[in-house]
Amino acid sequence: MREKQILVVGLGLIGGSLAMALQGFEDYTVVGAVRSQSTYEKAAAKGAAQRITFDPAAELPESDVVILCQDPQGICDFLRDNRARFRPGSLVLDVCGVKGAIMECASCLPPEVDFIGCHPMAGKEVSGIEHAEATLFRNTHCLVVPGPHSTQAHLALVERMAAHCRFGDVVRTTSQEHDALIAYTSQLMHVIALAVCDSPLLEGCVGFEGGSFRDCTRVAALDVGLWTQLFTLNAPALTQVVEELEERLRAYRLAMQRGDRAALEGMLASAAGRKRMLNLERARGDDVRSQFSGEMI
Amino acid sequence: MREKQILVVGLGLIGGSLAMALQGFEDYTVVGAVRSQSTYEKAAAKGAAQRITFDPAAELPESDVVILCQDPQGICDFLRDNRARFRPGSLVLDVCGVKGAIMECASCLPPEVDFIGCHPMAGKEVSGIEHAEATLFRNTHCLVVPGPHSTQAHLALVERMAAHCRFGDVVRTTSQEHDALIAYTSQLMHVIALAVCDSPLLEGCVGFEGGSFRDCTRVAALDVGLWTQLFTLNAPALTQVVEELEERLRAYRLAMQRGDRAALEGMLASAAGRKRMLNLERARGDDVRSQFSGEMI
Repeated sequence: MREKQILVVGLGLIGGSLAMALQGFEDYTVVGAVRSQSTYEKAAAKGAAQRITFDPAAELPESDVVILCQDPQGICDFLRDNRARFRPGSLVLDVCGVKGAIMECASCLPPEVDFIGCHPMAGKEVSGIEHAEATLFRNTHCLVVPGPHSTQAHLALVERMAAHCRFGDVVRTTSQEHDALIAYTSQLMHVIALAVCDSPLLEGCVGFEGGSFRDCTRVAALDVGLWTQLFTLNAPALTQVVEELEERLRAYRLAMQRGDRAALEGMLASAAGRKRMLNLERARGDDVRSQFSGEMI
Repeated sequence: MREKQILVVGLGLIGGSLAMALQGFEDYTVVGAVRSQSTYEKAAAKGAAQRITFDPAAELPESDVVILCQDPQGICDFLRDNRARFRPGSLVLDVCGVKGAIMECASCLPPEVDFIGCHPMAGKEVSGIEHAEATLFRNTHCLVVPGPHSTQAHLALVERMAAHCRFGDVVRTTSQEHDALIAYTSQLMHVIALAVCDSPLLEGCVGFEGGSFRDCTRVAALDVGLWTQLFTLNAPALTQVVEELEERLRAYRLAMQRGDRAALEGMLASAAGRKRMLNLERARGDDVRSQFSGEMI
């Protein structure tokens, strides 16, 4: 009987951690694909995959599952360049933080290849195989966006792989809903952190920042190439939430400039109340996940 | 010989912690003033002061040092209502997070009373005497703004009290410089957190916020009355930094809307580089405090 194979393309933090977490999954062999000698050596040293190759394209005809873990542009290029090489009936996944643009790229695949967009909501402030670990996904969400030809069998396979990796749950959503959620909860926070650090006041405050400043700006020291891609690919959803934030900041500023203490107090009471409600709902735990209209699979 | 006395007016988190930290300071007795029976009982139970009173005005003629720890409006009202009762030659301090408006209020004091504005850069997310502790100020900055009649002897007394409370240092500054710093490093972070929580997208994201969202919005569940006062009193400096942030957010949005990836990448590289530099400077520690032009005393 032919051996089943999972190919993980790109052994960075996420790909490396997935390759490690997936080892021992049913009767699949985990093969990792790298580009640099340096990554090869680090991945081999920590046993990140059962076999490591420099040539992912050559593995495609024999791979039942392919997980694309490059940066967004790398994923799109790989799909386009190799669309005829994927094994018919195989499942292709990605791990990118934007979904609409990736699903659009994946539409180049032939109908007998099943693409399911994934977003493991896990990460670290550091990147690279040296920080990869099999436990990275424990108790995190795995968001999935089925493609037009996705089968129940493949969705069930994703579910079993996620359980093996110890994800907290698998939540099915649409690319539109995913991208709006990520624009607000993640990308906007990065734009804010960057914009705060642009201020000429930054240099003068070293050593005098409070906890709120450190927390808000923590993510500003980001990977420039990756985040330029993420912002660009999700520009429609992201520009909308940035513009809404500009308008709300303006409303606070105008209330202060008018000296309208009553209006300002009302705005603070409303927003602080919303945050307290969020804290309470989060404390209630699992049952609130249903608030996000994505369905659990 | 007459016994020397420090009067702490208002035993909340900061006042209560100061009263506790100051016990045993030289030959001073620490008296705490409260308004409610409930605070009285909690303060007495934890020995927050050597004596507790409901009538701070009656203590003023016998107090060598008075530390005003009410909210900003409470401090201003107290100064105005009791300006003739302070002991000639006494030192009056406050602990408020805005300084210009407080120094203006303190100008009602007679010239023989020395007012020095203070801002202990310490706090917790929770308030009240029940959270007060003598160790709250360890290794934090105490910013001080001398008044027009402040004496070297009183500045030296502040320095000794701060050392007794285990502040990391005492840094002298002006009310203008202080208020611009605080508008940027603290108040702006609170306005951002509020404005993010105003979004109608908030409800839909419960359970799917990443670390950056939690960090950025952490401070939104604020004390509405207190922060309305702080924003109002520091409106000139705060509205300026809010408007600058609106403009920077707009610049990011326009680069994304134009699809100008090169411009966007340049903006990300610049801001991320500034944040990395800040992290490095902070890691260098004490010697960077000189970047803030306030002088150490």
